Amino acid sequence: MLEKLKEEVYEANMSLPKLNLVTFTWGNVSGIDREQGLFVIKPSGVPYEKLKPEDLVVINLKGEVVEGDKNPSSDTPTHTYLYNHFPKIGGIVHTHSPWAVSFAAAKMDIPALNTTHADTFYTAVPAADALTKAEIEEDYEGNTGKTIVRTFKERNLDYEATPAALVSQHGPFAWGATPAKAVYNAKVLEVVAEEDFHTLELTHQNSELPQYLLDKHYYRKHGPNAYYGQR
Amino acid sequence: MLEKLKEEVYEANMSLPKLNLVTFTWGNVSGIDREQGLFVIKPSGVPYEKLKPEDLVVINLKGEVVEGDKNPSSDTPTHTYLYNHFPKIGGIVHTHSPWAVSFAAAKMDIPALNTTHADTFYTAVPAADALTKAEIEEDYEGNTGKTIVRTFKERNLDYEATPAALVSQHGPFAWGATPAKAVYNAKVLEVVAEEDFHTLELTHQNSELPQYLLDKHYYRKHGPNAYYGQR
Amino acid sequence: MLEKLKEEVYEANMSLPKLNLVTFTWGNVSGIDREQGLFVIKPSGVPYEKLKPEDLVVINLKGEVVEGDKNPSSDTPTHTYLYNHFPKIGGIVHTHSPWAVSFAAAKMDIPALNTTHADTFYTAVPAADALTKAEIEEDYEGNTGKTIVRTFKERNLDYEATPAALVSQHGPFAWGATPAKAVYNAKVLEVVAEEDFHTLELTHQNSELPQYLLDKHYYRKHGPNAYYGQR
Amino acid sequence: MLEKLKEEVYEANMSLPKLNLVTFTWGNVSGIDREQGLFVIKPSGVPYEKLKPEDLVVINLKGEVVEGDKNPSSDTPTHTYLYNHFPKIGGIVHTHSPWAVSFAAAKMDIPALNTTHADTFYTAVPAADALTKAEIEEDYEGNTGKTIVRTFKERNLDYEATPAALVSQHGPFAWGATPAKAVYNAKVLEVVAEEDFHTLELTHQNSELPQYLLDKHYYRKHGPNAYYGQR
Repeated sequence: MLEKLKEEVYEANMSLPKLNLVTFTWGNVSGIDREQGLFVIKPSGVPYEKLKPEDLVVINLKGEVVEGDKNPSSDTPTHTYLYNHFPKIGGIVHTHSPWAVSFAAAKMDIPALNTTHADTFYTAVPAADALTKAEIEEDYEGNTGKTIVRTFKERNLDYEATPAALVSQHGPFAWGATPAKAVYNAKVLEVVAEEDFHTLELTHQNSELPQYLLDKHYYRKHGPNAYYGQR
Repeated sequence: MLEKLKEEVYEANMSLPKLNLVTFTWGNVSGIDREQGLFVIKPSGVPYEKLKPEDLVVINLKGEVVEGDKNPSSDTPTHTYLYNHFPKIGGIVHTHSPWAVSFAAAKMDIPALNTTHADTFYTAVPAADALTKAEIEEDYEGNTGKTIVRTFKERNLDYEATPAALVSQHGPFAWGATPAKAVYNAKVLEVVAEEDFHTLELTHQNSELPQYLLDKHYYRKHGPNAYYGQR
Repeated sequence: MLEKLKEEVYEANMSLPKLNLVTFTWGNVSGIDREQGLFVIKPSGVPYEKLKPEDLVVINLKGEVVEGDKNPSSDTPTHTYLYNHFPKIGGIVHTHSPWAVSFAAAKMDIPALNTTHADTFYTAVPAADALTKAEIEEDYEGNTGKTIVRTFKERNLDYEATPAALVSQHGPFAWGATPAKAVYNAKVLEVVAEEDFHTLELTHQNSELPQYLLDKHYYRKHGPNAYYGQR
Repeated sequence: MLEKLKEEVYEANMSLPKLNLVTFTWGNVSGIDREQGLFVIKPSGVPYEKLKPEDLVVINLKGEVVEGDKNPSSDTPTHTYLYNHFPKIGGIVHTHSPWAVSFAAAKMDIPALNTTHADTFYTAVPAADALTKAEIEEDYEGNTGKTIVRTFKERNLDYEATPAALVSQHGPFAWGATPAKAVYNAKVLEVVAEEDFHTLELTHQNSELPQYLLDKHYYRKHGPNAYYGQR
């Protein structure tokens, strides 16, 4: 069942330790088959060095296990919520990568301070609103997805142009058209978080990119007039 | 004698350099057999690349060498004190991992600023009171254990729920149900120390987790209602 | 065509990941044959692990593709402009190395605070003036070269003695007599950016090298009286 | 000639890149045969991956080349001066390791803030006085040794108990009873520089070890009553 997608999600999961995005088992990638309305996700708490494609768990868009012997990632309800509300995404990644976590713990957006950021993210990457006590106790992981979606709506952000968010005091989620692109975006987020930290320490002031520089870098890599890379 | 425990303690010691927790010989792991009241510890000053399981030293709960050709770790009296006063722990680790040392040198607790912390530590990891001149000169390593235990008592902390402490101006000790779990806790401590440093630089203010978020993350991984991982 | 130069430029490109100067495909090296007025550059967006010497693209000094199946680096107009205005350079490197980017995003020069800097750069490495909205929209990559050259002229800098610049809010360009030397200079820039960051945090004040120490270190490695290395 | 010493000095030089203490060729180790009054040093500017034991240069205590086809390290006069004035040392290391350089550029001592420091250095590691313009122009490398020795004399420091110094705006020199011990001390210096940076950022105040804790840690590893390690 979904063998090709499982292979793709497996490879994306295995790229997390290679890109230094995870310690121990702290990260998970999923990928969706939109036609069947099913997604594939890493099992909970399995070390990367022991993970096999057949360990992955298949979930439907109600968040129910459809196939798999293992418990799915405890973050499955967050993935479910995001797939339901961001209909154009094909993959989701959650990590505890340390620079992004440092900003999340500070409840700060990762601002757009350089063109590395603008090449991938068209705006600051938002720190979603913290969950209330009731939201945490009622349905923590589901409401984690909810606060991300709500934050994008409140701030009028396009989830395709800004494919990541921080969950306050927790860590980053990133997404993309495929599981591999979601991982790519998670890595970019970690790199710019590190750079932004140092830039903020140097400047102690806001020095965000002007809109025309954001436009230039974002659109030379994305959309119909992109001219970066091979086509 | 205690061959299985020696193998376990050997593996735990060897994981320290793999997890980037030690420079040169600056770290040691022990593990205890509670039934026999004996623990096994790394010999003093032996490089990891030369360490063999048979080099490990067996110690009783009075801190006396029971078996072994080599001198035990100079921190053996600290391990002895902790095993005597924290009766439910099965392994202890001491390292000089640099981020935890940075906080220890500042005599600061490692505060609970993110959910990575809450997944493993239910409270801030305390910086134990500095030893007095008399305590240092009389029985330095034994009193190092004493100040950790005293700090847990004074602050009313549960050593199972907060399985680590900083010794002021020195470095971290971590423990757990097994030697491997103690090492795991030592690594988590190092990761969150790094993240907390950066968060504190960004915020310059206290932004500790609310109790309900600490509860959620700690108890989704620990205790009877845990739902993280495979069971 | 230009097989030897292609090999040299290929090797220089492949040294970028080895020296930890690039993430993903974010960097490019070119090298020029001054007699033929042609330079060789990395194709756009090709991963280093897949790059082959025959993928490199040959460009003339008008910036036109002379040979090659692939699109050249999107930064080709910047390289073209620099080769036209810095007639003694033989190679150019652009990276998004994180410490240099942190200074570029802060629009700050990388000051000459230690002798590691003075061994390679005779002055501070300048942050070139930011491009205006019109310059970005009209010819972004060409004008990126223009602002570097203009900054060197305005500040009366010698591009051979200070073989690098930061493009504000973007990142570093470095150059040298050969592609390999350009890469060397890019690595030195990254190392001193990291050191300068920490020195500035420690001192919170200007502590630039006195001119006589800059002279000593620069001229013991460069020019007719150099005595460093084998000759 | 001095084959055994050459092998020892070669191994010590090769350990510098393994311990992440050098970039490119920026470091050198020497070792002395006190009976013959000759020392062996790395040649200038030779990459570590090409270095062979027979490339090492033999120097007498006047600083003259006694054997060797290659130019000795440009820092040879500094080594010569130190061997002449610190009669009990057997090896010297110079690196541009980045954390020690960051303190050197700030003209700051590396203070004794934790027991990792006290295990190896009995006092703060001093930043030697900056050279004057005349000293730099007259005999730069020789006077670099002179300012280190003068600083130890002025501050009444014991060069065996504090086996390293920073040269202001330049970088660290470390020494020891053997070339290997000098390298060990250079690595400890780099580790504590990194830790001290972070501790100083956390505390923004002096928090040096009390003398009795320095005594305890220094003397449990050094001198007749040491009890660390195997004997």
